Amino acid sequence: MRITALGGGHGLYATLTAMRYLSRDVTAVVTVADDGGSSGRLRAELGVIPPGDLRMALSALMSAPAALEERSDGPTPLGRSAHELWTTTFQHRFGGRGALAGHPIGNLLLAGLTEVTGNPVAALDELVAVFDIDGRVLPMSAVPLDIEADVSGLESDPRISRCIRGQVAVATTPGKVRRVRLLPTDPPACPEALESIRSADLVVLGPGSWFSSVIPHVLVPEQLTALRDTSARKMLFVNLAPEPGETTGFSVERHLHVLHAHADVLRVDDVVVDAASVPAGRERDHLIRAAELFGARLHVGDLAVPGRQVHDPEKVATLVNQLCEGELSRYAVRAQES
Amino acid sequence: MRITALGGGHGLYATLTAMRYLSRDVTAVVTVADDGGSSGRLRAELGVIPPGDLRMALSALMSAPAALEERSDGPTPLGRSAHELWTTTFQHRFGGRGALAGHPIGNLLLAGLTEVTGNPVAALDELVAVFDIDGRVLPMSAVPLDIEADVSGLESDPRISRCIRGQVAVATTPGKVRRVRLLPTDPPACPEALESIRSADLVVLGPGSWFSSVIPHVLVPEQLTALRDTSARKMLFVNLAPEPGETTGFSVERHLHVLHAHADVLRVDDVVVDAASVPAGRERDHLIRAAELFGARLHVGDLAVPGRQVHDPEKVATLVNQLCEGELSRYAVRAQES
Repeated sequence: MRITALGGGHGLYATLTAMRYLSRDVTAVVTVADDGGSSGRLRAELGVIPPGDLRMALSALMSAPAALEERSDGPTPLGRSAHELWTTTFQHRFGGRGALAGHPIGNLLLAGLTEVTGNPVAALDELVAVFDIDGRVLPMSAVPLDIEADVSGLESDPRISRCIRGQVAVATTPGKVRRVRLLPTDPPACPEALESIRSADLVVLGPGSWFSSVIPHVLVPEQLTALRDTSARKMLFVNLAPEPGETTGFSVERHLHVLHAHADVLRVDDVVVDAASVPAGRERDHLIRAAELFGARLHVGDLAVPGRQVHDPEKVATLVNQLCEGELSRYAVRAQES
Repeated sequence: MRITALGGGHGLYATLTAMRYLSRDVTAVVTVADDGGSSGRLRAELGVIPPGDLRMALSALMSAPAALEERSDGPTPLGRSAHELWTTTFQHRFGGRGALAGHPIGNLLLAGLTEVTGNPVAALDELVAVFDIDGRVLPMSAVPLDIEADVSGLESDPRISRCIRGQVAVATTPGKVRRVRLLPTDPPACPEALESIRSADLVVLGPGSWFSSVIPHVLVPEQLTALRDTSARKMLFVNLAPEPGETTGFSVERHLHVLHAHADVLRVDDVVVDAASVPAGRERDHLIRAAELFGARLHVGDLAVPGRQVHDPEKVATLVNQLCEGELSRYAVRAQES
């Protein structure tokens, strides 16, 4: 099964870990609008696309339990212990207070290799090859992007909306994010990412920071077209909980409405939400109708790591597997049944 | 044939390139006293051993023409083009004027991996494994060292000697370097380097910056003992020309006397010098006697790249091969013949 997962940051990391239970042919398509931390420093200093989320995706594919298990007795040249060491090394941040402090080694390696090859896709493919990673990691766009948001609630008059620029600024605004845009507004898609969406059996969007890691994927016009055209089954994973800043106080339903407002042509087959985030009664009906905005069926499952607001990769993999085999999950709620 | 090459910097790079024509089992033992450039910044910021000369040695083994030829049709997972790309990437320095400017990617990778493993030998071995490099690169010592020199000619009275500290300071002093010391004065040797010297068939020392890359190898007590004890054939390569700063105005003979003054117990089998640097007549006799300080025969060969003051790896490999096969090179001058 060919799987393409769209997202960024920790949400995508969890999805990739889950998808590796199902397939060795997993492609990550990653947002490139981060302007904070090491990524922000590197894009400002070197003009490269922000490497942080790409590095995390590489690390997820390299260190997924399924990947490590397969390696342990496979014919591949790098063994389990090497993959564990290199994952640690990719993610390791230089310490201290010097010029390098806070930079993960994987970010520096990817940024440098991008300078050498002149091409982030070639750089990522080289890392996949030399570190013997199953799958592929691609940027949503080969050029660094910025996020701009219309935010209300920053003035005493709640009707006044202000324009906020930058991923960090948007993610941490005390106001309410109404709408996000990418700058440039019509960014070039990554041809390899488009091809991976078109040729996939399954495309997964989310979970992740909704405005800065999920919605950007439908704001690249060619990528939205590819999402419409692909014959892949498409699943949308909604976050387990609102994120402070970006989506403070957001219900699941609101997540769906906001995404729809940014790309009303987007259609997906399945909207997957965690049971704990779904209200009972009439509000559940609203949620089913929100899923129908995308032409999707709603699936409700136990997806979280107990006691934590993060997806459990094994639970996610189990549910996706059930859905893909055409069986109704015991958790699934079909619109027509409700 | 197991070959161990001792040195640092560009001199060692050329030697390693030459030795790869003769063997796939080449170990580099590298000085770790550099305090300039990227290496100096990294040791100051992170406390790691200076990675620059180690990175160059890795690059030499990865990119040696013989290594690339063998790879082109071998069963190894990384091909010629990957080795060329990764060599370029190891050596590529970040540009601009920012915090990363001037750092070669290989230095950052080695420094980071050393932080993760807590051990520079483990870090180097991991790089050798993942980049599928034939051979091994080891530090002379697992701790960063400093060079201190007694330098004359800095005062109006040439008899007054001053103590200069730091590799860069020593290498660029306008005075005359009389003697160098390592700090700490009894540095711990690298056990793996000692073992590589003891088990080698051939040990090569030099060429290279005489005071900062060659002589330091005989100032590590355990390493000097290993050099005395090994049954390997030992060859000493003298520089093609004096280096501005360190060895301004040095004759070949003076190079030998200075080395002997730092380690009078050192014995080698062969002293190899370039024909263009050997004077005619009575001075040649002095040179033969200088070689005899080490119990060595003098060999004079055409070793340089035409028109440049650098060793030609193919010429060096050819001469070493002739010497090791017991044939007298057509250039060789035996002490007893003169």
